[in-house]
Amino acid sequence: MGKVDLRTLAARLNLSMSTVSRALGDKQDIGASTKKRVLKLARELNYQPNAHAAGLRHRKSKTIGVVVPEIANNFFSLVIDGIHEVAHASGYHVLVYLTHESLHKEINIARHIQNGRVDGLLISISSETVNVDHLREVRNAGLPIVFFDRVSNEMKIPCVTTNDYESAVEATHHLLDAGCKNIVYFSLSHNLSINGKRMKGYLDALRRRKSSASTILQGGNVHEENVNHMIRLLSGKERPDGVFACVEELAIATYEACAHLGLQIPRDVKVICFSNMRVAPLLNPSLTTVRQPALEIGKEAAATLVGLIESNKKSDPGQVKKVIKSDLIERRSTAIV
Amino acid sequence: MGKVDLRTLAARLNLSMSTVSRALGDKQDIGASTKKRVLKLARELNYQPNAHAAGLRHRKSKTIGVVVPEIANNFFSLVIDGIHEVAHASGYHVLVYLTHESLHKEINIARHIQNGRVDGLLISISSETVNVDHLREVRNAGLPIVFFDRVSNEMKIPCVTTNDYESAVEATHHLLDAGCKNIVYFSLSHNLSINGKRMKGYLDALRRRKSSASTILQGGNVHEENVNHMIRLLSGKERPDGVFACVEELAIATYEACAHLGLQIPRDVKVICFSNMRVAPLLNPSLTTVRQPALEIGKEAAATLVGLIESNKKSDPGQVKKVIKSDLIERRSTAIV
Repeated sequence: MGKVDLRTLAARLNLSMSTVSRALGDKQDIGASTKKRVLKLARELNYQPNAHAAGLRHRKSKTIGVVVPEIANNFFSLVIDGIHEVAHASGYHVLVYLTHESLHKEINIARHIQNGRVDGLLISISSETVNVDHLREVRNAGLPIVFFDRVSNEMKIPCVTTNDYESAVEATHHLLDAGCKNIVYFSLSHNLSINGKRMKGYLDALRRRKSSASTILQGGNVHEENVNHMIRLLSGKERPDGVFACVEELAIATYEACAHLGLQIPRDVKVICFSNMRVAPLLNPSLTTVRQPALEIGKEAAATLVGLIESNKKSDPGQVKKVIKSDLIERRSTAIV
Repeated sequence: MGKVDLRTLAARLNLSMSTVSRALGDKQDIGASTKKRVLKLARELNYQPNAHAAGLRHRKSKTIGVVVPEIANNFFSLVIDGIHEVAHASGYHVLVYLTHESLHKEINIARHIQNGRVDGLLISISSETVNVDHLREVRNAGLPIVFFDRVSNEMKIPCVTTNDYESAVEATHHLLDAGCKNIVYFSLSHNLSINGKRMKGYLDALRRRKSSASTILQGGNVHEENVNHMIRLLSGKERPDGVFACVEELAIATYEACAHLGLQIPRDVKVICFSNMRVAPLLNPSLTTVRQPALEIGKEAAATLVGLIESNKKSDPGQVKKVIKSDLIERRSTAIV
């Protein structure tokens, strides 16, 4: 059997399409027995109202758009789990878009979602994103936006993050306390808010402890290049004895570089990073991490967005900043040996 | 500025909405200079046609629905990356739904997507799914479906999988060749196609080598329970000296159980599993895996579905089975020591 629509129901019942539509809409001007007949057949044939037509009527897609740089990553996949949990409980579906760190893709997505596909947007911006005009357009089209994790200060809108700066200070102190004299910060793109805050935490912590000069190693999106950068740094004179990696990808690159050079973690080099990797305790050696509240960030961001959509306020919500704390979990990679 | 619609353009240009609509649709009955004026303003104001209205006209949402049990898992997140790659290249958006292994959620999703939100469905079924009437309904509503990884033999439709049976035979031979005398198969739900094929491969390999009796340990969706099951088994008499885990979650549980009991991998117990875990080489000890072609499975499944959607065939595509091979990657967890 093909698609069951109003026309099918009307033909089977020998009623007009308008009568069927009004019966399904529970309108007052249709007799009880007619309503009953229509609803019975609709159930039997598994009639589903057309989403496009319903969308036109209610001007709501009941769908949230989520834009992330990647999902093959424990942090973002946990955030998305959290978003799903709250969205489904509120009757919303979730449309996930990946930018793969490309501003070009992010702009295309922003253009695409303005035409009624979603009721609002949750976004963690790409590492290429500095100008956010494409997101201003989304807002101007009447769609609320909530930033999470990687935010832009160019727009005063709600954002949900962790305490990146304070956690980075704590991570750096942890390496200093473990005896490191020459700590390198393995950096993501300088455009990114999270990188800026974590790097500032690292620099301030070194300055506060009157530690020796700082070193920033720039990482990128290509794993092999990250490994090679770290191999070069660890092969040079004044080899670092501590690595603070901004994200888990860079800690994995550091582990691989040490394996390549025969350096032992934590004896020769101590490593810490921001990560939600589930197997961090099972790595060789187990990895000391700053564990972000990924699931909670997702839930909070989704709840904030649903609130904005349903309040239907035209007024500006302003830059409400919600910060959920991370934990430092000490493991073998920063042990004193 | 609020939403720019046909009405806005018509008012600004002092034209009727019908003229504007026909100009945007490049109809023949509109003068060239009028068309030019309309298109110029539409560009300037970033006019976006309404998706719901466009959907009604073309009866296409240009969206693919993807249903997976979870995404905080390297296999599914890589599959979704592959799906995105092909979908975006073909002009489709991707709507990701999570079942969290619940048949109830899967049924709700299947009902929900029948009303025009998606043009077709890619699904890896939940571990609770035996009856697939909800998917038959989706097909009866005219939406093509392609199974990937976890398939149902109840429906004769295209499916994309890896060579689960042959890879499981190879994995079991690998443990036998490493000297294991008492291998346990750590099992997922018996409902799942992948589990059935992998378990059969294990049993056939043991039988072929005239090995001692087989042992099946039933795992589930709760990590702590999986760890406890394995601890009990490894604490008993006739302790297994080899574990073949159906999925990486169960291998992680095995590593944790061994750590809890002070058993050394690979000396006391050897471990192998199906996994796309990126950090498998960095685990303590590095984990021998059957690596599935996750990205390729995603690409192939998406390409098959887009083909079905665009061919617009009413005829049954039948049960085309595409099988992409896995590789066994030998590491320390199965070494002879």
